[in-house]
Amino acid sequence: MSNANSLIPDSTIEFLLFDWLDTHTLFERPQFASHSRDTVEAIIELTTQVANEEFLSHYKKSDQIEPSLEDGRVKVLPEISRALSKYAELGFFAASFPEESGGMSLPEVVSAASFAQFAAANIATAAYPMLTRANARLITKFGTERQIQAFAEPQVEGRWFGTMCLSETQAGSSLADIRSRAVADGEDVYGARYRLTGNKMWISGGDQDISENIVHLVLAKIPNADSKLPSGTNGLSLFIVPKVLPDGMMNDIAIAGINHKMGYRGTANCLLNLGEREGAIGWRVGQPREGLRQMFQMMNDARIYVGLGAAALAMRGFSLSKSYASERLQGRAQGIRDGAQIAIIEHPDVKRMLLQQKVYAEGSLALCLYCAHLVDTNDSPDSDVLLGFLTPVAKTWSSEYGLLANDLAIQIHGGYGYTRDFDVEQLYRDNRLNAIHEGTTGIQAIDFLGRKILRDSGHAFEIWCARVNETCSHADASCELSDNASVLRNTINELRAVVGVLKTTESGALDNATVFLRAVGHIVISWIWLDLACAAQRVESQEFGNGIGRACRFFFESELPIAHVWLKEVVSLTDVASASVANEL
Amino acid sequence: MSNANSLIPDSTIEFLLFDWLDTHTLFERPQFASHSRDTVEAIIELTTQVANEEFLSHYKKSDQIEPSLEDGRVKVLPEISRALSKYAELGFFAASFPEESGGMSLPEVVSAASFAQFAAANIATAAYPMLTRANARLITKFGTERQIQAFAEPQVEGRWFGTMCLSETQAGSSLADIRSRAVADGEDVYGARYRLTGNKMWISGGDQDISENIVHLVLAKIPNADSKLPSGTNGLSLFIVPKVLPDGMMNDIAIAGINHKMGYRGTANCLLNLGEREGAIGWRVGQPREGLRQMFQMMNDARIYVGLGAAALAMRGFSLSKSYASERLQGRAQGIRDGAQIAIIEHPDVKRMLLQQKVYAEGSLALCLYCAHLVDTNDSPDSDVLLGFLTPVAKTWSSEYGLLANDLAIQIHGGYGYTRDFDVEQLYRDNRLNAIHEGTTGIQAIDFLGRKILRDSGHAFEIWCARVNETCSHADASCELSDNASVLRNTINELRAVVGVLKTTESGALDNATVFLRAVGHIVISWIWLDLACAAQRVESQEFGNGIGRACRFFFESELPIAHVWLKEVVSLTDVASASVANEL
Repeated sequence: MSNANSLIPDSTIEFLLFDWLDTHTLFERPQFASHSRDTVEAIIELTTQVANEEFLSHYKKSDQIEPSLEDGRVKVLPEISRALSKYAELGFFAASFPEESGGMSLPEVVSAASFAQFAAANIATAAYPMLTRANARLITKFGTERQIQAFAEPQVEGRWFGTMCLSETQAGSSLADIRSRAVADGEDVYGARYRLTGNKMWISGGDQDISENIVHLVLAKIPNADSKLPSGTNGLSLFIVPKVLPDGMMNDIAIAGINHKMGYRGTANCLLNLGEREGAIGWRVGQPREGLRQMFQMMNDARIYVGLGAAALAMRGFSLSKSYASERLQGRAQGIRDGAQIAIIEHPDVKRMLLQQKVYAEGSLALCLYCAHLVDTNDSPDSDVLLGFLTPVAKTWSSEYGLLANDLAIQIHGGYGYTRDFDVEQLYRDNRLNAIHEGTTGIQAIDFLGRKILRDSGHAFEIWCARVNETCSHADASCELSDNASVLRNTINELRAVVGVLKTTESGALDNATVFLRAVGHIVISWIWLDLACAAQRVESQEFGNGIGRACRFFFESELPIAHVWLKEVVSLTDVASASVANEL
Repeated sequence: MSNANSLIPDSTIEFLLFDWLDTHTLFERPQFASHSRDTVEAIIELTTQVANEEFLSHYKKSDQIEPSLEDGRVKVLPEISRALSKYAELGFFAASFPEESGGMSLPEVVSAASFAQFAAANIATAAYPMLTRANARLITKFGTERQIQAFAEPQVEGRWFGTMCLSETQAGSSLADIRSRAVADGEDVYGARYRLTGNKMWISGGDQDISENIVHLVLAKIPNADSKLPSGTNGLSLFIVPKVLPDGMMNDIAIAGINHKMGYRGTANCLLNLGEREGAIGWRVGQPREGLRQMFQMMNDARIYVGLGAAALAMRGFSLSKSYASERLQGRAQGIRDGAQIAIIEHPDVKRMLLQQKVYAEGSLALCLYCAHLVDTNDSPDSDVLLGFLTPVAKTWSSEYGLLANDLAIQIHGGYGYTRDFDVEQLYRDNRLNAIHEGTTGIQAIDFLGRKILRDSGHAFEIWCARVNETCSHADASCELSDNASVLRNTINELRAVVGVLKTTESGALDNATVFLRAVGHIVISWIWLDLACAAQRVESQEFGNGIGRACRFFFESELPIAHVWLKEVVSLTDVASASVANEL
């Protein structure tokens, strides 16, 4: 089957950016004043072209030929290097950076939409610039002028790449248990210098032969006076640890191994040993013990992008299975025994699987772009709070339901979808990572219920509820959507009551956090679909608008009702799982 | 992590066979009189040993080194041959065949339990005997004495293997569109002889270098007098087409290709061209145009075994992730910041993921063994009807929820679970096939709602309801289970009402068949869990019994409520999916 036009349709991206998120109003702000709808449409068009030509073209090959470790260094497929130098040459690394730092001054929402297209084409190749961009952003925000110039700017230019080094073998989800050690080693133009020792696990882009240098951002602990490491996450500090030092010498970083994954294979994932010899040199970012707070900026950024990537894979699977279903002839309509076979897209069950993919894929893409849009409008303090609230939802829902969408894309292809001759099985394998990296679903759920609900005054929740109410008010005016609006209002009231119960629960409130997040995810996405349906009533293409309207109806009929079951389960404060005993399992 | 003891615990198998299904009462029947609990326990023990030593030992290797096509013939990993000759040597091919045909006269339920263990160890290797057994059974049931002797007996001995050849590239789910042609070519000792031409797709075990010969059972059409092929599935006849003819010559069957799959890789899956030269020789089984009815015997048999395989993969993932969660230290209990890290099995979310796996894995294993038990008790006509009713449920629910269980097994392993150093990612890839082969989920749903509900008098449904009532009556006597019994009774009443509505629906009743089957699947499994919980109250080990009781409670609290949402969706007769238009998607 042909891969042509299997990426995210430009029409979908433009609907989301302009008809829905009113991205054109951003151009009135001074920082985006050099852009217009025309420049953005040109960038989207260029994105689609480069994604097709340079990223999609090696999708299967980079799955078949994995990065390898040779003489202590990682080699990746040359096509990945070529794609990323084209990407750098066109300035995409710098897309959302301001012009004065050599960037394009694009709104974050446009930059995110562009990333989604590259991720749809080849998520493993797109992972390198995703991390690089987030790394450069962190340094730009928290680093000194000299650090920015030395370590962020080459990344903005796409000459150097970046990583984030958090996990260690004994410290995956539990960052408090990081044992990497940073010992003071004087000061120089780049700031306070340290010698680092330790082992870092799961480092995406930990080594490669693409970029001139790699900037590792490393979480480590500075020992106390008794030379013991401080306990807890409060003891973490952040360091810039480049692969090649400013004097041209190699830093003391060994590649101890490379992980062989089920998917996402083009992204070299490494185990790094820091300081096997004299200690790896690193410069501290900001003050000691501020590492986790700083890293959270990069992590939250990455979480939205993980969600975007998951949504992008779902979009491509949806595209491929829609084309396949339109071309594959099999069977006849119910009750008809003779005559030619019909395209399987005519079978009700296949239509349902496509509609399911549509609500999962487009729903998560929309939510992630909404989050990016909040970054652009963060001159309002509400935007920042709402972004923090929605980040775990966007990361988790897109990862969980994006995978389900890819599962359905395989199912529509039947036996063919299970073979490596088609891309859908690879999309499925690639997407399986997204519920794991940058914080598993379970970790997101504890963050969401613990930090964003229980330990919050209710401020974030109310800001979100106000946005939902706004959407419902718009929907009230439409005879097709007003019923959905009242269902959504009732659901929000139910959710508010559940939150009330959890807030007054003495223990065990977090035990069913994952079920709670799942329920909230469905409610958030029903709000997104209702908002999309309101916007779709204003678009010119009736076909396009009808499609959005039908997807909204499907989500309210077929998906949202399950959220009530999950809310009931949470509010019952059941301990059936949490009280179970290991040896009875 | 160690693979030791990662198979299905013998204690679980023995609970299901003896405490639950009263398998010992079968030994009173003359056909099973040579067996006792002791002989069966010895067979289970031997199964576990051979599965560990010969099947599990090449699980990863057979994923890495796929079958290859060399000089027109398929070569498989030598370890697969070795495992299957041990399997043959011990008589497992013959397990459920009567002693007079060289079998062990084992009850089907024991044979199925033994198969599940081999599938847990290596489903791709276990697929060869699974198909062989089903092939030999079909010939034994419908073939002539001479056909049985010539083509079934060598399979019962495990010297020859068997396949089922249904699909063609243009005829996957739609068997009416089969174009393979069988032209009469006289008669000989093996029966009416034909010359076959056509292409058969997705043939598992279509070629290999393990067995002395391969017996293909091929669906094809005998042309009418005008030399056109009859239309529809009624035109299908069934033929025995051996790879090597009785005179030692090679039959006219070419291996046109081998499929490269996401998982299940040890099972060579081929595209066969029949009759590239003078026409492949085949002998008709039974009468012309009876092919589909005969093949349904093999297909239904295979469907239960697909469900069993899916359950077995889920059981192994459950086992592996339980061990991993007991050994992996990460984080601390809620609210505790210092001290040593705890095993992740202590975290509520991990407990929930294990309990979910338990209800999916053990629930589907139990349902599939219940189906096998119905084969053993088919002297009652109810058993046969109930088996037909439950087959699509067992096949589909086990495949869909077995995969979800394997997804959770990966999630518990975190990043490690996504690497090929651990088996859980392979279990997940292997299991993804099960919702596709032997009839996709969508096909099962139409079979279930169309044939077993709407076109049935209600007889099958009522037989099943009677069994559910029996279970509820037992549960009434227990203070822990009586609430669940009344929930289940109400659910059955709700289901009965939904069936009533569907029966009087003029069109579109089948449009949401998949949602209906999903709902019924959950209700069937809640009945199974309640029945298991009743049986568990009688077992000696309190730990074991508590575990079953808790799983039952979890299923009723956390899973069954969703079935009501699905039933509501079905009874609303929504056309939101079925009325959608291709170009609006």
